[in-house]
This record gives sequence, structure tokens and C-alpha cells, in this order.
Amino acid sequence: MGKCIWVLGADGFCGWPSTLHLSNLGYDVVAIDNFARRNIDVELGCQSLTPIEPLEKRIKVWEELTGKEIRFEYIDISEHYHRILSLLKETKPEAIVHFAEMRAAPYSMKSSFHKRYTVDNNVNATNNILCAIVESGVDTHLVHLGTTGYYGYGTAGMAIPEGYLPVKVDTDEGEKKLEIIYPPNPGSVYHMTKVMDAMAFSYFNKNDKIRITDLHQGIVWGCQTRETMMDERLINRFDYEGDFGTVLNRFLIQSQIDHPLTIHGTGGQTRAFINLQNTVECVQLAIENPPESNERVRVLNQTTECMNILELANLISEKTGAEIRFYKNPRNEDDYNDLKFENDGLLNLGLQPITLDEGLLFDIMEIANKYKYRVDMDKVICTSLWNGSKSVDREGSNIPQGNGV
Amino acid sequence: MGKCIWVLGADGFCGWPSTLHLSNLGYDVVAIDNFARRNIDVELGCQSLTPIEPLEKRIKVWEELTGKEIRFEYIDISEHYHRILSLLKETKPEAIVHFAEMRAAPYSMKSSFHKRYTVDNNVNATNNILCAIVESGVDTHLVHLGTTGYYGYGTAGMAIPEGYLPVKVDTDEGEKKLEIIYPPNPGSVYHMTKVMDAMAFSYFNKNDKIRITDLHQGIVWGCQTRETMMDERLINRFDYEGDFGTVLNRFLIQSQIDHPLTIHGTGGQTRAFINLQNTVECVQLAIENPPESNERVRVLNQTTECMNILELANLISEKTGAEIRFYKNPRNEDDYNDLKFENDGLLNLGLQPITLDEGLLFDIMEIANKYKYRVDMDKVICTSLWNGSKSVDREGSNIPQGNGV
Repeated sequence: MGKCIWVLGADGFCGWPSTLHLSNLGYDVVAIDNFARRNIDVELGCQSLTPIEPLEKRIKVWEELTGKEIRFEYIDISEHYHRILSLLKETKPEAIVHFAEMRAAPYSMKSSFHKRYTVDNNVNATNNILCAIVESGVDTHLVHLGTTGYYGYGTAGMAIPEGYLPVKVDTDEGEKKLEIIYPPNPGSVYHMTKVMDAMAFSYFNKNDKIRITDLHQGIVWGCQTRETMMDERLINRFDYEGDFGTVLNRFLIQSQIDHPLTIHGTGGQTRAFINLQNTVECVQLAIENPPESNERVRVLNQTTECMNILELANLISEKTGAEIRFYKNPRNEDDYNDLKFENDGLLNLGLQPITLDEGLLFDIMEIANKYKYRVDMDKVICTSLWNGSKSVDREGSNIPQGNGV
Repeated sequence: MGKCIWVLGADGFCGWPSTLHLSNLGYDVVAIDNFARRNIDVELGCQSLTPIEPLEKRIKVWEELTGKEIRFEYIDISEHYHRILSLLKETKPEAIVHFAEMRAAPYSMKSSFHKRYTVDNNVNATNNILCAIVESGVDTHLVHLGTTGYYGYGTAGMAIPEGYLPVKVDTDEGEKKLEIIYPPNPGSVYHMTKVMDAMAFSYFNKNDKIRITDLHQGIVWGCQTRETMMDERLINRFDYEGDFGTVLNRFLIQSQIDHPLTIHGTGGQTRAFINLQNTVECVQLAIENPPESNERVRVLNQTTECMNILELANLISEKTGAEIRFYKNPRNEDDYNDLKFENDGLLNLGLQPITLDEGLLFDIMEIANKYKYRVDMDKVICTSLWNGSKSVDREGSNIPQGNGV
């Protein structure tokens, strides 16, 4: 028997490859999901570019191939509190990997319904896990997928540190040095919920000494990992529509269907990236290196490179010959932003970065090209409004074309 | 027809006197409540010391006395989104005063159920209002009751500013000056929800230009206002049990039933206070002085004096002759804390502070003494645990006696 690890959101884009990676390492993985992401596919009338199997089938194939068992539990983390609590007491996991949140900024902005769903689901999910850990008395380690979007997309002229900011404050007794939680600056309702999560982590860590690692992750690129590539029936999802698909995924699809690469705004918006294989390795590193019981929330910037959208388009254009075309930007954001991150935490634990330049060709040929016959052309751009009725106040911000950066 | 104002939580301790105060000023008040507070009385098996009438009766008496009409709507702000939205479009309020939150720190810590209720209710209520304002397009001003507990109970050796902190940060180009949202440090799940509210306000203000005033209020003392004193059937609630009753209210009761004043810890914990009559005046001042449409969230510290618990006990002891007795403290907090607040915002708008020293005798004689025959002796101390099963980690922190500070 290996040590028990829970993966919440185990059927999702990061959850599924993390589940397999941890199972392959010998952990007894409990895979928990409520299939919210598959249900959203139904709502949006879209599907993964890649032909993903039902979770039951995926798990069966994995067992046939490797002999390793994965236990599945259907739990809505935002609602089924007492199922969480009883399962915690039963399995006493060494760590809980928390992906059980709605993860798309554009989806969170589609309407009041979507804003409300995102807040209700994400905040209650995180609070339920924290309350259940306290109530159960199980000494586990919560590993949460946060976002680099916590910090906003600007810097104060320096690399963004890992969660905490050293500052100087004028006091009655002169200047004092403090280290504060980095002042958050979320850019969507989705990002706002990750900020609320961080506030909950800070509180429960302080009051109940819960051990927490918050991985502030950049945009994940790459569809596959070593384990998901073992059999086509294990293939991971690849989202390309305007709500859940990242700008990179849409560029990849566009490059294969003779559509220009669509840049919203100038393309000067810099974003942080990380490869999916690196993501599952980061989750492993976080689990293997838990914080001490008296340690504050450990925040790690889970990103290996920054690139602006134009550079990204140029990179794909070079590899595929695709054209580039510019559209108005629906987001309230600056045309250009400077962005860099400190990421020594994970590098010092041994992370070996996979770069866009070396890894992208695989996704172009093995995913975008291979499965382009499944593309729904109507879903290549999205229609989220960043501002509701008030958008008239900001020039050009209500163009009904979004992107999933 | 006066201008329309909504009061959310209009049947509550601050909500009811604010409703009457605003009605008296000539506003058309829409009183909204779901009677959550009265239902919690049922759950806790307790009742207000003062004999409060049902809201329907209260409103009828007010109309008989003054000729002023108050419209009541039964809405659960955390759930009935479309009732909020349609009523917004119908009445187009000039301001929305938001008291629709569970407000007691000890109640929020009683069990996982109470933590989860507090987060679910408070965060969804605030998010629903914000989403409805955006969706309706109504240009209203949201006036929210926050808490001085947002800041925590320590200072960095200076008066706590009104919401924003000037800091200096070392950057690649040398030292830079910034003004950041004051780093929050909540002391309970209840306080944590007010921090999450502040994160939502900051985001919706930035993205949708919603005009918001967040009143970071101290502990409210005093039971009555000019309007609630007009007729005994208008009397306001007075909570004295261990979850919703403040330390001050319990001292007042104890002084009248020959019970020693019970101090948890050293009594060196300093807290911020404001009188209830001042509270309703602050709400009026906030409404009359809305932020500009391009202004960031306006944060005002709604507190007029700071006093530690021992000083407070001594003040009541002097006026009543009551003894003082010390017990262990169930909270994770320092024995002594230095606390002071900048509060120029409301003072500059014209607030005239009522001090504890001059106002307390009224509550002693007209409330505590007059209604002491209604006291349930079993409810004078509370049983909230600040830490669940993990409390063994902190010496002396799990004594089952709380206080409502």
C-alpha cells in the first residue's frame, strides 16, 4: 500500500494527468470529481478536441496497462461536505491536491449566472475542504492550484516574488520593515475567487495550523504527459473554444485550419506559461516537500517562462507558416505589460523547465493536426463580455470577442 | 416621493435603527430581510433582552406614529438573485445599505456548519448584490458594513489608516512608493468573510466602476436611537448571550444581576467602539457623500474610541459597583495589543462622537436594569471553540468559554 493522495477535480485538464502521474509514482490515489467540466461542455455545446474517454473507462484502461488501482469517488466539493469529512477520516490522505474549481476567466465573465456559479463553487469548495480538515483532525497537506493572475498583470518594476512582498512602512517610531501578503490584483471574477482562496488559506493556516502550498500557476500549455501518452484511451482534454481554450491552444488550432492567428489588442500583453508535464512534476514536488506545521502558507510561482502574445503568435507562425491578424481587445487591460516572476522555489526543488520553443511542435502535429477533423469552426472565438451594462464607460471594452488567456 | 434607499438586513440590530433613521430623514426606504437573525435565536434557544416586535408590527407602528411608509420585501440576498435584480430595475435606489451578513465572530466559529454557513451566506450575498448592480445597469451606491477586524488587532506602531497603506518597495529601479490595500489579518471566519467582501469590492469597483463605501465599523454599543425610543414597540434588539452579545453587553447584564464582570484573558485586549446612534448617522453621512464614479472603494473607519477590556470593565464597575473576575481566553490572540485608528473621514463629514463614559448609564438603567427580568442565566457565557481538533496545538486556547468581542 502506498501513501494515500486525493486529487480533487481528477477528471479535469490538470487533474487527470496529475492523477496518473501520482498513481505511477506509487501513491494510492483517490480520484474525486463531480464532472462539472464535462457538464459545462454540454452547456457550451462544445467538446474537447481530443477524444477523451469517460473517467470510468480511463481508470479501467490505466489499471489494465499498469496494474495500478485508482479509487473514484463522485463528490461535489462545494456541496457534499459530509462525504468529504467521512472520506477524510477513512483514508487519512498525506496530501490533498485541490483542482476542484471552475478555472476559466472568460467563462466566469459570460453573465451573472456564470459569475455567481464561479464564486459559489470555488469559494465554498475551498472553505469546505479547510473546514473538513479541521473537523477531521487529519494532519494532511493541502496543495492548491492558484494562478499567477492573483498578482495582476503588472509589476512594480521587479520580478513578482513568491506570495509575499517585503515593504517599508512609516510608523510613529520611524521606518519599519514588514513582509506582507502580496497585494492581489485580480483581472476577472475567476481570478477574484483565487484571491478569496488565498485569504481563506492565510486565515486557516494562522488559526488552525493547516499546512498549505498554494501553487500560483501560469497558463498551462501542452496536452499530454508521459502517462497520458501511453494509450490513446488515456488522452487528456484539449480545449480550444473561446472560454476554456487558452490563447495558445486557439493559435495551434488556427494554424492547422488555415485561419489567421487572432490577436486581441496589440499582442503586447505578457503572460506566464508552464508546460503540462512540468505541472504534474510541480504537484509531485509540492507533495514531497510539505511545509512544516508552524510554517505560513507556502506560495510557489509555478511558471517557467514569460512571453507576450505577439511573440507567441510569431513562434507558432514560424513553425507553421500561419498568418497573424489583429482584433480589438475585450478586456480591461493595458496594451503592454512588463511581467516577470521569481520561481526559485520549484527550480530549487529540482524542476527542469520544458520551453515553448522546444515543446510546441509536438502539440501542433500530435494534437492540433491529428484531431483537427473534430474542430467546430463556430467555437474558435468566444463571446464573453468583460463588462456588463457598464462597459459603455470604457472605450472599446465591450467588443464581443474574448480570449482565454 | 423621497429618494429610494434599500436597507438589506433591515430587521437586524443595526438595520432596524438605520431603516427608521433614513425613513425619518425623508427617504423612501425599502426594508429587505430574510429573518436569518430571528431564526438563529430559535437555533440558539435565546432571545433579545428587549421585547422586540415582529417587523410587520414595527413598520405599522412607525407609520402610525409618523405617517412615513416603509416597504418590506422578503428576500434572502444570498439566494434570491432574480428578486434582487427585478426590484433593482423597479425601484432604482440611490443607495443600498448592506447589512445582510451573519455578523458574529463567535457564532462563525461554533462548528463546521457555522463556518460554512457564514462563508456561503456572506460571500454569496455580497457577490449577488454586485452582480445585480452590474446586470441592472442601475447607477447606485453600495454602502457596506465592514469591520475594524479586517485589519486584525495589531498595529505596526501607528494609527491604522482608512483602508489603504502607503509603503515603500525596493524595485530594479530603486525604491518606489505605492499605496496598497491594507494587508488584512482577520481573526475569525466571520472576519475572513469581510476580507473576502473587500476583495470583491475592489474587483467590481475596478472592472465595473461600481461606487462603494466600505465602513470598517468597531464594536457597536448602545441599544437605542432617537427613532427606536419613540415607542416601546419600536425597541431595538439587545443581544447578551455569548455568541451575538458583545463583551460590553454581557458586562452590562452581569452588572445588573449581581454577577462578576467576566474578563477572558488579561483584559489587555484593546477594541474599537462606536455608539449605535453614531452608526446610523455614519450610514447617513456615507449615503449623502457618495464616491465619484471613477473613485476607488472608499473605506472609512467607523469607530470613535478605543478601550481595552479591563478599562471597559472598570468603567462599568465604577458606575454600578460590580466586581471583576478573570478567566482563560479561548481566542488565539495576544494578551495585550496596541490599537488606534485614523477616523478623519467621518469626523470631517460632521460626525459628533458619543463616548462610552457619557452614554453607558442610559443602557445600564433603561435597558439592562429595566429588562433584566428577561435574562436567561444559562446564556451569559458562550461555548464556541476557536480551534477544532487542532486546538491542542495552542496552549490554553480550547477553553470552552468565548466572548463576543
